[in-house]
Amino acid sequence: MKQVEKLTRLLGRLPGLGPRSARRIVQHLLARRESLLIPLAQEMMAVAESLTTCRICGNWDEVSPCYLCIDEKRENATLCVVEQIADLWALERSDCFRGRYHVLGGVLSALNGVGPDDLRLASLEKRVVEQKIEEVILATNLTVEGQTTAHYIAERLGKLGVKATRLARGVPIGGELDYMDEGTLATAIESRQRLP
Amino acid sequence: MKQVEKLTRLLGRLPGLGPRSARRIVQHLLARRESLLIPLAQEMMAVAESLTTCRICGNWDEVSPCYLCIDEKRENATLCVVEQIADLWALERSDCFRGRYHVLGGVLSALNGVGPDDLRLASLEKRVVEQKIEEVILATNLTVEGQTTAHYIAERLGKLGVKATRLARGVPIGGELDYMDEGTLATAIESRQRLP
Repeated sequence: MKQVEKLTRLLGRLPGLGPRSARRIVQHLLARRESLLIPLAQEMMAVAESLTTCRICGNWDEVSPCYLCIDEKRENATLCVVEQIADLWALERSDCFRGRYHVLGGVLSALNGVGPDDLRLASLEKRVVEQKIEEVILATNLTVEGQTTAHYIAERLGKLGVKATRLARGVPIGGELDYMDEGTLATAIESRQRLP
Repeated sequence: MKQVEKLTRLLGRLPGLGPRSARRIVQHLLARRESLLIPLAQEMMAVAESLTTCRICGNWDEVSPCYLCIDEKRENATLCVVEQIADLWALERSDCFRGRYHVLGGVLSALNGVGPDDLRLASLEKRVVEQKIEEVILATNLTVEGQTTAHYIAERLGKLGVKATRLARGVPIGGELDYMDEGTLATAIESRQRLP
């Protein structure tokens, strides 16, 4: 049973799972060896072997440059800067952006010892210059660190003469005022928009 | 990205996970390819290849008979009957039972069309006779179906002259063994009661 315990321990390291849920998953997998356990193991191995980091934008894909960077239908002049690949995927799911991406790989954080050299900033500036980027959307998270990073990047990009923008702030769709924090409400009131 | 989507879909089929948590896990795994993704895939494959069902008790192990059935330190005269392997594991974690196990593989259920022939009852009766079992603890769940099954088995075992007991009612009605704490299970094993 050592193998089962080892598998349970490994699964328990996944985000959102503890020892109990890992055990439940192991039992679920063992009862579905052919239909789930083996396909899942094979898929994980295939992903581990084939996925690579795109040398242009920092996304994961089976090829580098990735499918987003080689897509000829996307606009070249607009670059969307995100903290993590997960953010890129979230924006892609919303299907609202047709330009290119650039993954920073983190945010500036004095606490965690992350400085400008730890982020993919040199390659961002290189892209802005070489690919004649007209606008950089700084889509970092609306956290203190995310916004600090956005302001820092905007300042550096300013010297290159490129337009830097950030995501609109306000109440999210479906959001209830009662559950919003004061900052969000203040911003939403401040940047209120005229109804046609 | 088709591979990543396929992996996300497979992970989303695990109990307790949905599309969002599966995505989070995929991103966590991709960021830890060497330390987590590959070891996990290998372990899953190893478990899938090596685990087999014990021909005596119905437990999973790398060998058949399993480590519990060949353990010479365990008592031979007491048999603990459980619905699922998960229940056996739960009892083993509570470390309160030193006899042997027998996994039924389910419960009688008119609703789901599960009759006596669908459970491992013939092999149970064979074990009781051949291995000179003195007591059978019917540790089925405290659900209606689990208790119906326990009474049905007690009746059949009565004809063989073996003592049938059930867990003390320290386990709350409607509760399932896999979700009980060790203390409750230990108390329940200790105060097991004879079925009339």
